[in-house]
Amino acid sequence: MKAKTNAAPTEVPRYFTEERSADAVVARMEAGADLRLREVMAALVRHIHAAIKEVEPTEEEWMAAIQFLTDTGHMCTDWRQEFILLSDTLGVSMLVDSINHRKPSGTTESTVLGPFHVADAPRREMGDDICLDGSGESLYVSGRVLDGSGAPIAGAELDVWQANGEGFYDVQQRGTQPEMNLRGRFTTGPDGRYWFRSIKPCSYPIPHDGPVGKLLDRLGRHPYRPGHIHFILRAPGFQSLTTHLFVPGDPYLESDAVLGVKESLIGDFTRHDDPPRAAELGLANPFWVLPADFTLVPT
Amino acid sequence: MKAKTNAAPTEVPRYFTEERSADAVVARMEAGADLRLREVMAALVRHIHAAIKEVEPTEEEWMAAIQFLTDTGHMCTDWRQEFILLSDTLGVSMLVDSINHRKPSGTTESTVLGPFHVADAPRREMGDDICLDGSGESLYVSGRVLDGSGAPIAGAELDVWQANGEGFYDVQQRGTQPEMNLRGRFTTGPDGRYWFRSIKPCSYPIPHDGPVGKLLDRLGRHPYRPGHIHFILRAPGFQSLTTHLFVPGDPYLESDAVLGVKESLIGDFTRHDDPPRAAELGLANPFWVLPADFTLVPT
Repeated sequence: MKAKTNAAPTEVPRYFTEERSADAVVARMEAGADLRLREVMAALVRHIHAAIKEVEPTEEEWMAAIQFLTDTGHMCTDWRQEFILLSDTLGVSMLVDSINHRKPSGTTESTVLGPFHVADAPRREMGDDICLDGSGESLYVSGRVLDGSGAPIAGAELDVWQANGEGFYDVQQRGTQPEMNLRGRFTTGPDGRYWFRSIKPCSYPIPHDGPVGKLLDRLGRHPYRPGHIHFILRAPGFQSLTTHLFVPGDPYLESDAVLGVKESLIGDFTRHDDPPRAAELGLANPFWVLPADFTLVPT
Repeated sequence: MKAKTNAAPTEVPRYFTEERSADAVVARMEAGADLRLREVMAALVRHIHAAIKEVEPTEEEWMAAIQFLTDTGHMCTDWRQEFILLSDTLGVSMLVDSINHRKPSGTTESTVLGPFHVADAPRREMGDDICLDGSGESLYVSGRVLDGSGAPIAGAELDVWQANGEGFYDVQQRGTQPEMNLRGRFTTGPDGRYWFRSIKPCSYPIPHDGPVGKLLDRLGRHPYRPGHIHFILRAPGFQSLTTHLFVPGDPYLESDAVLGVKESLIGDFTRHDDPPRAAELGLANPFWVLPADFTLVPT
């Protein structure tokens, strides 16, 4: 189609103008066959142009942004994903998680996966202690996996992982921690029950020696996450659930660096000083108890 | 300040919620001492969250975006800036340029610098031929540097650069092209006049063998820029001006991959078949003529 000489006011101008800057970019995408990519890029372009018009960056600020993105890219390796950290710390990961896992009321809420999940963690027997390095305050976790009506789900898999008593995951300390420390997969029987032994998780910083850590620092933000245990629950006929349970009273609960906390995910951790009960459960005294049921959504 | 137990509806919730996702992130920045960074990041976070809510990306799409940014970062080297290409092709560079160089009417408009400028190009005498490899259609460029009242500016420097007859800058073909081919700096005398010889510029693709090139391709966009000559004008008492002059009739004028074209920057290139005049100007016949005045804004 030939461009008209007398463009109506709503028509996209033939050349770039500050006023219609995003329109000019979006108009270029019309030949793209990938309709979804066009839709996503159009929304991103419109919102990024709007943000730029709002803040009116200097050319030095623009160059600083280019340099930040470049440094963030250069920080990424096979074992460090700095752009995911950026997404996490800006609440983008939580937003994408929330959009993709809207749950009916009464079912367990989701939160972010995080970078430390390992596929194929060892299968454990109910009651096993997943803490293989013997450090930390002992913890007993138990509960049921349920459907929306409160009925138990048999054959549900709980994939559990957490950091050790010093706030590091096994994969962050290969050679120091035992392999597959504080990880395991448990499968419920007909009563939907599970139980295992571990340690009370503690708060720890996300990796903050890179560009994202520097950004947090300049924004007056700390890099800490409140102590938590990760879970993925999978059961035939149900949507899989990726979530955490957090330790109440943790000083970072309201300022989690990755904004992962939801009120319903603060666990009911209680401390017990009861040597006979500790012996019965196979735990060092004193010990912590966390009762936790998970309610899944049918597929 | 202690968080209140009974939060008013407008108060930011204590924990992440999908509805108030951007507020939760922005509230975390309040301790940052760098007010400007907080302002910029708050605007970016609000607009990026709005874009995400609009398109509702799947988790696979989010991961594809993370991978795209990572690949773009890994493509960046000392001599290749893929994030600037991304900014250029999404119209962000032009928008930042426009915001920072709003010009009074009647003065010459700016456009993007591009990645091929070299500081300290050689000083040339008026009339010099900046084309050192003798290929391309010959061109005579001449005009004046003026202030807003039409008075000539003496001692104005024109820093000129362009691609060769095959669409490559000297810095892209080190060892093949003569050093400082198609570059030079000219200084006006009391009449504000300048004149030099070169070749008619041709269209060329931006580097498109990386992630940005792949993105353009999936969006149905080509990587070409219409033929143009770059100029930076500097004169004491005036704002420096970074601009291009484009070749009229170029097939890519209305689809410049970096959206750099403004209507006022399309030059008045005309072709001449006039052997005596060509001999007089020291040009091969036939030849092109480009008359071009530049009007600068006082500081």
